Amino acid sequence: MFKTRLDDTARAARAHLHAAISDKGALAEPMRYATAGGKGLRAFLVMESARIHGVSESRALWPAAAIEAIHAYSLVHDDMPCMDDDDLRRGLPTVHKKWDDATAVLVGDALQTLAFELLTHDDVGEARVPLISSMARAAGQLGMVHGQALDIAAETADSPLNLDQITELQAGKTGALIRWSGEAGAMLAGADIAPMRDYSTALGLAFQIADDILDVEGDAAAVGKAVGKDADAGKATFVSLLGLEAAKTRAKELVDQACDALSPYGEDADTLREAARFVIQRDR
Amino acid sequence: MFKTRLDDTARAARAHLHAAISDKGALAEPMRYATAGGKGLRAFLVMESARIHGVSESRALWPAAAIEAIHAYSLVHDDMPCMDDDDLRRGLPTVHKKWDDATAVLVGDALQTLAFELLTHDDVGEARVPLISSMARAAGQLGMVHGQALDIAAETADSPLNLDQITELQAGKTGALIRWSGEAGAMLAGADIAPMRDYSTALGLAFQIADDILDVEGDAAAVGKAVGKDADAGKATFVSLLGLEAAKTRAKELVDQACDALSPYGEDADTLREAARFVIQRDR
Repeated sequence: MFKTRLDDTARAARAHLHAAISDKGALAEPMRYATAGGKGLRAFLVMESARIHGVSESRALWPAAAIEAIHAYSLVHDDMPCMDDDDLRRGLPTVHKKWDDATAVLVGDALQTLAFELLTHDDVGEARVPLISSMARAAGQLGMVHGQALDIAAETADSPLNLDQITELQAGKTGALIRWSGEAGAMLAGADIAPMRDYSTALGLAFQIADDILDVEGDAAAVGKAVGKDADAGKATFVSLLGLEAAKTRAKELVDQACDALSPYGEDADTLREAARFVIQRDR
Repeated sequence: MFKTRLDDTARAARAHLHAAISDKGALAEPMRYATAGGKGLRAFLVMESARIHGVSESRALWPAAAIEAIHAYSLVHDDMPCMDDDDLRRGLPTVHKKWDDATAVLVGDALQTLAFELLTHDDVGEARVPLISSMARAAGQLGMVHGQALDIAAETADSPLNLDQITELQAGKTGALIRWSGEAGAMLAGADIAPMRDYSTALGLAFQIADDILDVEGDAAAVGKAVGKDADAGKATFVSLLGLEAAKTRAKELVDQACDALSPYGEDADTLREAARFVIQRDR
């Protein structure tokens, strides 16, 4: 049920995003390319949190497409040689490999802009300003970009990060957008965001711990990008700091926390509970 | 009168922007650095178009700071080695020279995000969504970033651009944000944007022609960045396509057009008329 819903929401959000990318100009093709793949977890969280709050799909598609645009922009920039320097993403050449660095800069820039434009659509209604404002906080200097800056700084630091620092880094780099995605449905409905905030905060951290576990245990072909990179680079991760078994235990605890936070929604939130269990069981 | 007003509005918008940049994290200093200088023409246009529409300074400061953030982001990215590769900006080392390329990517990204966040402030009132939506169009795939992509593509093209192509390039690269700045005051007031759109469209084009003239006639020390670069690179400019004298004549015609467009505002718009004359007389 979760897998079907994940695929359906990812496909719908991607189609919505692609319809918003103009055919005009040199950036059309790389913008589509940069947003063509991925699991679509963030879009799923927006769509599913919207559904359990009684929000229509036609409204939820705007923030779902917007968060996938922001996520894609962050990957395109993060993969650049001056950042994480990755040649492979979702099993395909990264944008700067297939085109060039200038294209990667501009595609990322245009995708960020597009995300904010999508959130201004009339269909989004009263929630437009709260969604834009919270997305800006999640993506900006104290959110995702803060996490990326900490990540870059860690690469040249004298000593590896400690657990508090890694937690702060990941709360920004991956946590902030995942939390926004979960909260978006409640914001669309004008409802209390606290349960979805607690759910998606725990989910985001579990997701990152699982990512670190995949970097150690995963298979490059399945993961679709290089593995073992962090360990080879001597970077601190949840696995290097906690040990593999304790990291797995911590991820499971976080999934339990995430599921508990959904109690106000009863059975209606079962797909979100499945999603939480999925993030620590996935192979990519 | 115009010079004083330009300095005052630039200082106020910069202070407003700097107050919005968090002290926290590694990006605080380069974000301030990237937004510390410049003429502040865009902020002036926002503030002055707001004033002639009876909009208070406290409301206008938000879009004024936002447009300076967007402008600064575009310069930081555009100066990078993979883009225009400039070492000097406003007489000082560019962000990637003073820090590094990764910092330049992240500072630009964070400044774009901050621009949208500023526009969500309660003080902006009813105009928030129209301002955000129009800024996204001005900055995005069919606006500024489109112009930058055309500019990058032109560098590797077999033949120089023609006049139509250069006009399209500049309408995006510099025109779109200048137009938005002029329209912003009318949008804040909920007034007809047509006169300000006509004014700032003509002003933006005159500004770019003047920039091309400065690249030929200007002094690097006064301009604060390298001059003669476009000619040396064999790039098409308004000067190379029209000739120096015809370019000057065209710029003057555009300034007249811009001033004429302000007729509905009478004498109240005299400072904006001075601004139009200034852009083709400046030495930097």
